Amino acid sequence: MSKCPACLAPLGDGDFLPLARHLVGRAGESDPDHVRWLNQNLTRKKTDPAGLVPGLRQVYALGPMGIRGWIKAKFIAKFYGKAPHPFVVALQHPSRATLLGYVVEHQHFLRQWVRSCAYIIARTDQPKAIHYELDNLNTEFGGLGPGRVSHYELLLRMGESLGVDRAKVLSTEPLPATRRAIAGWNEIAVTEHWVSVVAAMHSLELIANRNLVDEGASVRYFDPAILKGSAITEASQQFLREGYEADVGHSDEALGLVAEYADTPALLEDVQSVFFRSIDLFDEYLLARLQRAADFEA
Amino acid sequence: MSKCPACLAPLGDGDFLPLARHLVGRAGESDPDHVRWLNQNLTRKKTDPAGLVPGLRQVYALGPMGIRGWIKAKFIAKFYGKAPHPFVVALQHPSRATLLGYVVEHQHFLRQWVRSCAYIIARTDQPKAIHYELDNLNTEFGGLGPGRVSHYELLLRMGESLGVDRAKVLSTEPLPATRRAIAGWNEIAVTEHWVSVVAAMHSLELIANRNLVDEGASVRYFDPAILKGSAITEASQQFLREGYEADVGHSDEALGLVAEYADTPALLEDVQSVFFRSIDLFDEYLLARLQRAADFEA
Repeated sequence: MSKCPACLAPLGDGDFLPLARHLVGRAGESDPDHVRWLNQNLTRKKTDPAGLVPGLRQVYALGPMGIRGWIKAKFIAKFYGKAPHPFVVALQHPSRATLLGYVVEHQHFLRQWVRSCAYIIARTDQPKAIHYELDNLNTEFGGLGPGRVSHYELLLRMGESLGVDRAKVLSTEPLPATRRAIAGWNEIAVTEHWVSVVAAMHSLELIANRNLVDEGASVRYFDPAILKGSAITEASQQFLREGYEADVGHSDEALGLVAEYADTPALLEDVQSVFFRSIDLFDEYLLARLQRAADFEA
Repeated sequence: MSKCPACLAPLGDGDFLPLARHLVGRAGESDPDHVRWLNQNLTRKKTDPAGLVPGLRQVYALGPMGIRGWIKAKFIAKFYGKAPHPFVVALQHPSRATLLGYVVEHQHFLRQWVRSCAYIIARTDQPKAIHYELDNLNTEFGGLGPGRVSHYELLLRMGESLGVDRAKVLSTEPLPATRRAIAGWNEIAVTEHWVSVVAAMHSLELIANRNLVDEGASVRYFDPAILKGSAITEASQQFLREGYEADVGHSDEALGLVAEYADTPALLEDVQSVFFRSIDLFDEYLLARLQRAADFEA
């Protein structure tokens, strides 16, 4: 285990004992990232390092479905368990405030998305990954001709349909949690192996993957009923529909790239740790959307 | 002057004297990059640092056409003067060997092109630059749908039409000069300001800009007559035509971005030095195409 899943500090190769020592040490100093990771993934009980090793080994065990199945299972456990993430709960039948919290913070997320995926293109040696990310950037930010509007543009239109113009959205600074998450993803994009960056970013698209309910997710990202009727604006429906339809194939294809190119045990373990770090950042970022929503409550 | 145009070493702000001292010092050690830069841009005579300052000031003076005009003038002087670059001379009515030298080395150039432009997307804060580079990556490497073939694909087809299959092209290592140039551009992409990276890379597209003859270039990249008739293969015509038609707008638009976003005197000077470094790398790289062509001489 060469990287801490809570902070990506290098730990040197070898077994799980150095990681266990690091986690216990940092949690003992009450560092929130390490406390949270231990609580969510291993135990809430104070345990000595040697006692953590079997649990850590189990957490990192890939199982018969390999890295793809492992990532999906961890993602579902974190965001789509018995108690889904609070933002997902709010999005089932979203208020105007929830959608506007989404718009204002997500604008910053998508700008970082572009940066992270561009770093993958810049740092990979695999044409297949370049083509995948180029297609992705076109969809998310570029738009392809007048008939195809980018996901970023659809987001801004959702905000306008809810009464907040794009100048206001674009000039609003991100909340501290969003800023921190973005900084974390940028650091990952600059420093981690490109395969880990693919895993870190595209695993997040699983949030909108409607097929996760077939693999154990308790709910979908939102109740698909809101895509019809008039509970939310038409522009909001368009934004959510794009993600709902696009991200299924997208995240599956990306996990396929990870499975194909994470071709050493050491790289696979790095992918796992970087993924863990990324979903913790995402957790905080999704809470920031809710925090922003409060600004728009009546 | 904060960077040396021959090696991009930082020099500290201020007047041209630190640069003059650095150039004289490094040339005194017979460093070929510094000797060449001095010879081509200032003087072949041994001069003391203070004596070089007026010349340096003149070389960097932007003149009434601003950074765009300055870049074009320097580019023309270097590649399209009375004695055009030897590769350009060979390309006027190219042999099979010349075109194959182009294919084998340029494959590597285009892979670096993708990396450099992806770094611009990753590191810029300007959506306009993102859209420009995304469009560029689609054209050069992505291809847009079955009707639109990427420039990279057209290059490989040119090779095939001349009897060298793509597996052979893709598995041929670059010549040392190409490798060195690519490493230099990658270093620029990773470390320099994104506006300097735009200038460094897209100025190189001027090589195929057919309008440069209106601004003083002695010849075009090739004799346009070869785009008709059967002197070269149809796939070669297609490859050369794409560049001939595409790169005019492309390089002009990029220089527009440079003019717009190089908004401080210090950044403008950096852009100039990075551009100088990039065209020296390009000079060597174009010679590598000719060197490779020798492998295919009958």
